[in-house]
Amino acid sequence: MAAPAKPTRIGLAGLAVMGQNLALNIAEKGFPISVYNRTSSKVDETVERAKAEGDLPLYGFHDPESFVQSIQKPRVIIMLVKAGAPVDQTIKTLSVYLEKGDCIIDGGNEWYENTERREKSMAELGLLYLGMGVSGGEEGARNGPSLMPGGSFEAFKHIEDILIKVAAQVPDSGPCVTYIGKGGSGNFVKMIHNGIEYGDMQLIAEAYDVLRTVGKLSNEELHQVFSEWNKGELLSFLIEITADIFSIKDDKADGYLVDKVLDKTGMKGTGKWTVQQAADLSVAAPTIASSLDARFLSGLKEERVEAAKVFGSSLSNVEVDKAKLIDDVRQALYASKICSYAQGMNLIRAKSIEKGWDLKLGELARIWKGGCIIRAVFLDRIKRAYDRNPELANLLVDPEFAKEIVERQSAWRRVVCLAINSGISTPGMSSSLAYFDSYRRERLPANLVQAQRDYFGAHTYERTDTEGSFHTEWFKIAKQLKN
Amino acid sequence: MAAPAKPTRIGLAGLAVMGQNLALNIAEKGFPISVYNRTSSKVDETVERAKAEGDLPLYGFHDPESFVQSIQKPRVIIMLVKAGAPVDQTIKTLSVYLEKGDCIIDGGNEWYENTERREKSMAELGLLYLGMGVSGGEEGARNGPSLMPGGSFEAFKHIEDILIKVAAQVPDSGPCVTYIGKGGSGNFVKMIHNGIEYGDMQLIAEAYDVLRTVGKLSNEELHQVFSEWNKGELLSFLIEITADIFSIKDDKADGYLVDKVLDKTGMKGTGKWTVQQAADLSVAAPTIASSLDARFLSGLKEERVEAAKVFGSSLSNVEVDKAKLIDDVRQALYASKICSYAQGMNLIRAKSIEKGWDLKLGELARIWKGGCIIRAVFLDRIKRAYDRNPELANLLVDPEFAKEIVERQSAWRRVVCLAINSGISTPGMSSSLAYFDSYRRERLPANLVQAQRDYFGAHTYERTDTEGSFHTEWFKIAKQLKN
Repeated sequence: MAAPAKPTRIGLAGLAVMGQNLALNIAEKGFPISVYNRTSSKVDETVERAKAEGDLPLYGFHDPESFVQSIQKPRVIIMLVKAGAPVDQTIKTLSVYLEKGDCIIDGGNEWYENTERREKSMAELGLLYLGMGVSGGEEGARNGPSLMPGGSFEAFKHIEDILIKVAAQVPDSGPCVTYIGKGGSGNFVKMIHNGIEYGDMQLIAEAYDVLRTVGKLSNEELHQVFSEWNKGELLSFLIEITADIFSIKDDKADGYLVDKVLDKTGMKGTGKWTVQQAADLSVAAPTIASSLDARFLSGLKEERVEAAKVFGSSLSNVEVDKAKLIDDVRQALYASKICSYAQGMNLIRAKSIEKGWDLKLGELARIWKGGCIIRAVFLDRIKRAYDRNPELANLLVDPEFAKEIVERQSAWRRVVCLAINSGISTPGMSSSLAYFDSYRRERLPANLVQAQRDYFGAHTYERTDTEGSFHTEWFKIAKQLKN
Repeated sequence: MAAPAKPTRIGLAGLAVMGQNLALNIAEKGFPISVYNRTSSKVDETVERAKAEGDLPLYGFHDPESFVQSIQKPRVIIMLVKAGAPVDQTIKTLSVYLEKGDCIIDGGNEWYENTERREKSMAELGLLYLGMGVSGGEEGARNGPSLMPGGSFEAFKHIEDILIKVAAQVPDSGPCVTYIGKGGSGNFVKMIHNGIEYGDMQLIAEAYDVLRTVGKLSNEELHQVFSEWNKGELLSFLIEITADIFSIKDDKADGYLVDKVLDKTGMKGTGKWTVQQAADLSVAAPTIASSLDARFLSGLKEERVEAAKVFGSSLSNVEVDKAKLIDDVRQALYASKICSYAQGMNLIRAKSIEKGWDLKLGELARIWKGGCIIRAVFLDRIKRAYDRNPELANLLVDPEFAKEIVERQSAWRRVVCLAINSGISTPGMSSSLAYFDSYRRERLPANLVQAQRDYFGAHTYERTDTEGSFHTEWFKIAKQLKN
């Protein structure tokens, strides 16, 4: 294998598809890169691809020592291996050969606390550490991902020039990378990004469901509708690929492929973590939670088939005006999406306050505008909302979003009720609507719940008309009233 | 202070109200009891109460050594102190004086893994350990709680006779206690009990909200309605106290007290843990989750007041037939409640399988029939459902519950849509309905989500018509189609 004439600029360990693609991306941007993988065949494969894709300055190594020693000091090595134990193993393998001031970057979907633990133990060895969220899937890694590096600012500075070139470039907005913040903030922000992605996908699936099941749209029509939507306010990667999906015929049988795909959705850890963090942070995130629940329920295919037999199809055939329905669903989808992003952004803010990360919400919206799975024209509106008011309590009350919601709320309510009356329900859209209706409500029925808590558990309550904490002997008084 | 003539049968440490009441309950059932508290005044207070409430055989101690030594061997000591560090502190204080074979019981709302950790370290000292959920609030502790002891079966056997007498007694159903299972199962089951309690309270609050806000019922009418409901299928402690609450006038100002209670609901850890465990166990629990979110949103009072100004009151004045509305809301509440309990029971089953606890769902429903906050005639139906079929996949498909849901689903859909169209939303009822509609659906739109995942992340998909795992080059094919 050709050795580099002089030390390379950076190293990358872990050559599954994401790792290969990111390495090729870096090399293509003109940064000589060393690559290593425990299984040597992956190294050779990557070297072959570098050759084939234009003789890129990429150098493969079969042993960790020569890999590390091929990189210029202070060394920077990006890892793209599975989260958890494989990350610890890779760190162990590489750190033997590293020297003070060198840096390791974890580019996987790691739990943020693991990154914080590793950053500490690396610091004891005089090494720097970054946890960097990488979004965009395989295609993004190769052609420009959204990058969310968090941890050592010094380490970030070592490779800022590389990241700026490697990241997706958005006109008038710059490269999709920024230094996120200290500790595990890069992983945390990527985790919330994925939670938002869950929400987006669920809401799109519900739009599809209403249009297909109630509106009786064919796949051809769905393709048209989503293509059309992708020209307006919903313009985004996920809407675009959804339009694509409806255009693809099955190559194994008649009809469209999407109809043959089993209705079971897989998942990895980030959606679950997002929901658990929401509970920890006391932040309501019902849209994201409903998308996780939808995946859980999708997994119970056999139980659902049985339950469908018990309850029969209670789908009412509601007569609908197709054009009107399509327009209503677009509005419901958009309004629900605002709620979902409001939840995600508030999760990030709550964590930032808890950890003292000082995260900039508008800047996060900016780096999500390109490269990543949730990239959308919509993110520019979010950025503008936080530019207008960095202290915005909730996206819902930003004047621009508030106006958009008000304009769409009739359609939104119509779609949710139509789904309910058709027996299908739209968990994401209806929980978004309930979130909106609760958030904008001066007086919720929570007074009753607090009265109940004081009744049976003496938890006390506050009053609307005076300060202080009160307890009432509800049981005794009620008993007297009964006698 | 009077010393016992011979060793007492049991000890209790931690004399806040719950501890005092449980100690008095035990003494009243004829079991001489030693009590101890770090703050001595609580000891004296408890001794005074024992004297006043009929010279009960209760003996107070101001130091831990004489407290422990006053108890017959093998000693059993119940702790009722705050979960977390205070439990560890109390164990440390007491275990110095304990001998092999002695047992400590934690009666607090402890995280189940803490109990498992303590059981292990106690076992190393030759001591036994139980984590026992105690439900029923102060009143239950005094007059008969529901008890959920889990951990050492040997320890349970030492005090089974006491627990059977101390627990609530339900005619034709027995005392509300059973050995739950190994490890932290007693705490886990109590945690889910509390999660279900959150769900029940939220659903009742929504029923109140619809009746008050849309139906314009007065507190007098609400009192009548809930009193009436408490004679039928909804008969339960929570409905009963809700009826009571509406009858109580404010003693500080005109009107009813419930209207003066601030709409901010407090919480402790168990609801949050339930939601986090649901995510961990891949079990959808949207009704319980929505009740937690409702508490979070209730806490944002100041933000809600501001948001209400932004959006104004979009409450439409819908004309309703009061009697019909009341009947519809009753049915919606009942159907939603079935969903909530189905979620809670499935959480317990999933954990039981994961941990090998072999929990009996029907038996849990039985011990919740009395003493605890969620006690209800409804639990007898759940018990019968599991008696009919211990392997029941979901309460929804039990023939009796299925029939009840089918009868109520029109009313249920009417109430949720009415709330949505009135601009108030009912997060618990609507997420319950979405849960039902998803669970009974043979084909969900999850096929689209899985197609999206395969499109951008090569996550593969299954097919409806053949076995195996498939991947499609969606992007390439769509691109070809476009050209």
